[in-house]
Amino acid sequence: MSLPEVVPEVVRLQEKFDLFQEHWSPKVVGELNGQQVKLAKISGEFVWHSHEHEDELFLVTKGTLLMRFRDGERRIGVGEFIVVPRGVEHLPVAETPEVWMLMFEPAGTLNTGNVVNERTVAEPEHL
Amino acid sequence: MSLPEVVPEVVRLQEKFDLFQEHWSPKVVGELNGQQVKLAKISGEFVWHSHEHEDELFLVTKGTLLMRFRDGERRIGVGEFIVVPRGVEHLPVAETPEVWMLMFEPAGTLNTGNVVNERTVAEPEHL
Repeated sequence: MSLPEVVPEVVRLQEKFDLFQEHWSPKVVGELNGQQVKLAKISGEFVWHSHEHEDELFLVTKGTLLMRFRDGERRIGVGEFIVVPRGVEHLPVAETPEVWMLMFEPAGTLNTGNVVNERTVAEPEHL
Repeated sequence: MSLPEVVPEVVRLQEKFDLFQEHWSPKVVGELNGQQVKLAKISGEFVWHSHEHEDELFLVTKGTLLMRFRDGERRIGVGEFIVVPRGVEHLPVAETPEVWMLMFEPAGTLNTGNVVNERTVAEPEHL
């Protein structure tokens, strides 16, 4: 091989979380296989929505996330994750004053899914 | 909608890690968008390998992972991750007696990539 090999950078979650304070504004911190790793801080509740073509993973690193579904709800604490399948309506709610979470989802996934309103972040920032 | 909505289960990383002790034997704990979430416990060093078509993410939850590359190395501690792009040779090494990590990669990714030997786990267990 004549091209130099890549030595990828390490991503430190705490360092990335320290770079922003806004709620409900996911930041892209990694990309692989057409998927993105995003970090978000949330407070209060979001909007009911679903994603037609994308499954979404939420891994909590601070606080407790309450995920409401039309037929039930789940609490996701630190060190726990949930996968919301495509097409399933959900409403993320921060059950503690602030929740920090890591999300895995296809690149281009809109935070508000099938709903476009003032909370939609069309082009999430890369950190 | 006449079909009942899905209420997905929460995955607790600690509970899943408690279910196995083997080293270098990734367990599948989640699936989304053709990708899998795997957990692994490792000790000592693995084998040099690369993945022709798959990028791999390693997020450390216990200990320190040393990832060697042909042109350098990176240390990944708790709460840190690295993405190893497809085609890049790498050698994972546990720098502490044991390392626990979460991996995110396409379903079907072989742990030993382009190398098939006694450490290859062809069909990882689902927990």
